[in-house]
Amino acid sequence: MPDTPIPLSAGATHRFEAGLERRAANYVPLTPVSLLARAAAAFGARIAVIDGERRLTYTALYERCRRLASALAARGVGRLDTVAILASNIPEMVEAHFAIPMLGAVLNPLNTRLDPATIAFSLRHGGARILIVEDAHAGLAAKALAEMDSPPLVIAIGEGGIDGTLAYEDLIAAGDPAHPWAPPEDEWQSLCLLYTSGTTGDPKGAVYSHRGAYLQALGNAVTFGLSGESVYLWTLPMFHCSGWSYPWACVAAGATQVCLRKVEPAEIFRLIAEHGVTHLCGAPIVLSMIAHAPAHEQRDFSQIVRCAVGGAAPSSTIIRTMEERGFRVTHLYGATESYGPATACLAQPDWADLTDEERYQRMARQGVALATLDAVTVTDPETGEPVAQDGIRIGEIRLRGNTIMKGYLGNPTATEASLAGGWYATGDLGVWHTDGAVEIKDRSKDIIISGGENISSLEVEEVLMRHPAVMLAAVVARPDAIWGETPCAFLEVKPGAAVPSSDEVIAFCRERMARFKVPKTVVFGPLPKTSTGKIQKFVLREQARAL
Amino acid sequence: MPDTPIPLSAGATHRFEAGLERRAANYVPLTPVSLLARAAAAFGARIAVIDGERRLTYTALYERCRRLASALAARGVGRLDTVAILASNIPEMVEAHFAIPMLGAVLNPLNTRLDPATIAFSLRHGGARILIVEDAHAGLAAKALAEMDSPPLVIAIGEGGIDGTLAYEDLIAAGDPAHPWAPPEDEWQSLCLLYTSGTTGDPKGAVYSHRGAYLQALGNAVTFGLSGESVYLWTLPMFHCSGWSYPWACVAAGATQVCLRKVEPAEIFRLIAEHGVTHLCGAPIVLSMIAHAPAHEQRDFSQIVRCAVGGAAPSSTIIRTMEERGFRVTHLYGATESYGPATACLAQPDWADLTDEERYQRMARQGVALATLDAVTVTDPETGEPVAQDGIRIGEIRLRGNTIMKGYLGNPTATEASLAGGWYATGDLGVWHTDGAVEIKDRSKDIIISGGENISSLEVEEVLMRHPAVMLAAVVARPDAIWGETPCAFLEVKPGAAVPSSDEVIAFCRERMARFKVPKTVVFGPLPKTSTGKIQKFVLREQARAL
Repeated sequence: MPDTPIPLSAGATHRFEAGLERRAANYVPLTPVSLLARAAAAFGARIAVIDGERRLTYTALYERCRRLASALAARGVGRLDTVAILASNIPEMVEAHFAIPMLGAVLNPLNTRLDPATIAFSLRHGGARILIVEDAHAGLAAKALAEMDSPPLVIAIGEGGIDGTLAYEDLIAAGDPAHPWAPPEDEWQSLCLLYTSGTTGDPKGAVYSHRGAYLQALGNAVTFGLSGESVYLWTLPMFHCSGWSYPWACVAAGATQVCLRKVEPAEIFRLIAEHGVTHLCGAPIVLSMIAHAPAHEQRDFSQIVRCAVGGAAPSSTIIRTMEERGFRVTHLYGATESYGPATACLAQPDWADLTDEERYQRMARQGVALATLDAVTVTDPETGEPVAQDGIRIGEIRLRGNTIMKGYLGNPTATEASLAGGWYATGDLGVWHTDGAVEIKDRSKDIIISGGENISSLEVEEVLMRHPAVMLAAVVARPDAIWGETPCAFLEVKPGAAVPSSDEVIAFCRERMARFKVPKTVVFGPLPKTSTGKIQKFVLREQARAL
Repeated sequence: MPDTPIPLSAGATHRFEAGLERRAANYVPLTPVSLLARAAAAFGARIAVIDGERRLTYTALYERCRRLASALAARGVGRLDTVAILASNIPEMVEAHFAIPMLGAVLNPLNTRLDPATIAFSLRHGGARILIVEDAHAGLAAKALAEMDSPPLVIAIGEGGIDGTLAYEDLIAAGDPAHPWAPPEDEWQSLCLLYTSGTTGDPKGAVYSHRGAYLQALGNAVTFGLSGESVYLWTLPMFHCSGWSYPWACVAAGATQVCLRKVEPAEIFRLIAEHGVTHLCGAPIVLSMIAHAPAHEQRDFSQIVRCAVGGAAPSSTIIRTMEERGFRVTHLYGATESYGPATACLAQPDWADLTDEERYQRMARQGVALATLDAVTVTDPETGEPVAQDGIRIGEIRLRGNTIMKGYLGNPTATEASLAGGWYATGDLGVWHTDGAVEIKDRSKDIIISGGENISSLEVEEVLMRHPAVMLAAVVARPDAIWGETPCAFLEVKPGAAVPSSDEVIAFCRERMARFKVPKTVVFGPLPKTSTGKIQKFVLREQARAL
């Protein structure tokens, strides 16, 4: 902001407006970059990032980001230019989250589990001028680049592996550690571009703003209890919704981030024990991996480790096992479109009176708005009005607030479909409980209708997950001449567990749910998953149809 | 926000701007009121406020605020109208912090320790249309109103005591618990008006914005570790900088606020023990009171109580005693102009290697920027450039960011003097340490110059406070024919302690500081204080001059 006060509106004469305009001393556009500048100034000697034997203090992290920014600027990167990155959870990934926005450029983290064609699509669609590639993913990058007519300039982290590239560390070494930067003039300026894995058609690129990322960082820190004493373990891919905005949240709180290249139980336990990890995030599969880790891979630790789980509800079994081992589980819900977590299943006063089993059921709900989300609602698909908060009526879950994306890049139709009517329409169907928590009953297309009754596939899955031999469960509709549809269960069995019989599984369900909800068919085997670990129900639906 | 997207700037055609404009789904003006709406929706059954036997859930608090807002609206209160309140730390004071901004009106909390003439000045200057008065302060209010030609409408909390008033609870009872409200169109809109006690001349009215209060609430919560499990005790007057923005911070975190009408050790200990208090704020006198409480007024408690202390640095003795009793002290620094805390003395990695005594010295520093403050600096008064971060060079402490006031109401000269040059000039002189912490060496006028050497009165006071008999110490300059000035110490002795001799105090100082800094004169007796508890050094300077 210039030093001269900027009039709020031309000719403001009200005594609470005139002479009280925004000016440099009291108005700074919100940007997550300022959180790093403040952290370096406030506790520069504190450890910001741990990666194996490497340690980056906040001073070092800030300097490296400024060096990278200066190097990118020297190569022509400026305001609203796209810089893509293909990397695991390494320090350079954290650096990208600050260095690129520092230039007013747009960070575009790519999913390392995607195929070359999709990577190439993202690079083309996002208009990346630069692609930063970790050596571990050089093969994938090379294949993607080979598909492009005018590929971006490549910067290689580590050993390289792609011809004609710049070395990341050379750029850092030659960069200016005091490179000047300024917040964007308008905090609504685009900051980040994240392609969603999309169930059909081309990926859509959700765009974040500086304002939204700053607020989501604070909202995460407040809701999840991050502080200067926190140690955060990177079990969640940082390319997912910019790591749920945790690269920024950890810096806002002054926490330490511990990198993790491969999600393996032995390494997770080692880092938890050695670095005093207090927080981690991930999909249920991460918790499942921790909960079912063989004894020789586990390590003892004395601190409490808070785990935020999103993508799907954690099962009772997982929660119980985790709690017994010193973890505390919080179920979060969100989307790429909401900068990661939008709701969290926060404890309610009446939980104190519940049995453990009842509490686990409650904890599986998607929960309530984060501090920085404006509101969550569940709307009747017919009328668009909120449904009753009765835990019964099903509607679409919708979100509103500063931590909702600006829209999809170059896709006004999809943007309009998502954001029209004053809310972000998640596409997820759920109920609204009396205590304010929302609970997903199904993705729009996942409801099974049998004999005129609606069956939530999630509810059946939750029961199946309680079976001692079951590692993962997915339930879809199987067409049926009599009932219209019947639930068909696909089950992945725990390593080393004996495969139960279909009859045994069905009997197990009969004891635990209304009869019409019990799967009529049970199939055993590995479940098909997307690159982001979501179960591909559309594949299972086809399999069920073919049975 | 309307549902139609609002173009960022006319004719935006960049692909990262066009079609990605702000709209109702993704842009909501920041206001602390939305934090309460979210809390009520997210955990309505949780206890928001405790006052004696009274309990307000978040649902009840939100409903009462909407009732009050509807009642005020019915009496003509609207956008940018001023509503003043004269009350202790009672639930109605919390309600005022939400109900009045809910209308877009301006909350004006008044200091209950002021004289009637100053109260009358504030009411006139702020243009209050309504004055809400707690019965305990009816006498003060009546005298102030008697001095006014056109007094505001009065609303009485409790037993009343002023003729012709409306009863607060009648308004609540008749109000609309679902009164509709909306955030201000522009989050820069004025929210709060706080008169500073001012050392000379008329009080100045610092004006806060909705944006600033929202961000300060989150900054406090992140920096001070407030969470949904926190229980906050109101030992700090809520009329000080809107209670350092804690009425909003507690709601952002979902914490419970415990009211306290009179700051007395027995009651403080009782509430800490009975309600599991985890956080409190206050001036050093509050900590002093807790630390020196007689044994029969103390109570045991098992939790850690985090105390944020501001206004002056806590002494080593106080910090040690507090730590021994289960308290953890954090020194904060700020001003009415900075929504309360702007910096905090956060732990640095090298503290682990310090002795307790060294650590207490570090903890007395004013510290580093809160997460939501943009920056703190120390500038050379001559050049205006930052001084070296060497812990030696003295300059003026300056602050910048979204949590700096909009300016002083109707006082462009004072606003300009405070906010010109891109920083808020605190008027406090200090040094900047290598680790980033600032440390006040003196208020501009409090430096003592003796034989050409600068003496920080605070430094001498810190030593005096370590004397076992000393409760409070203030050091000012006494004119001296030879040395120019010499330090003169005014000491208030602990209740029951024997008054030491001047020689003994001087000998105590000689062992602990450079000889030129040792007070030449020592005076015993109660210290004069302002209505906000600050020691009135100008009175002492006059006394010293007359010795």
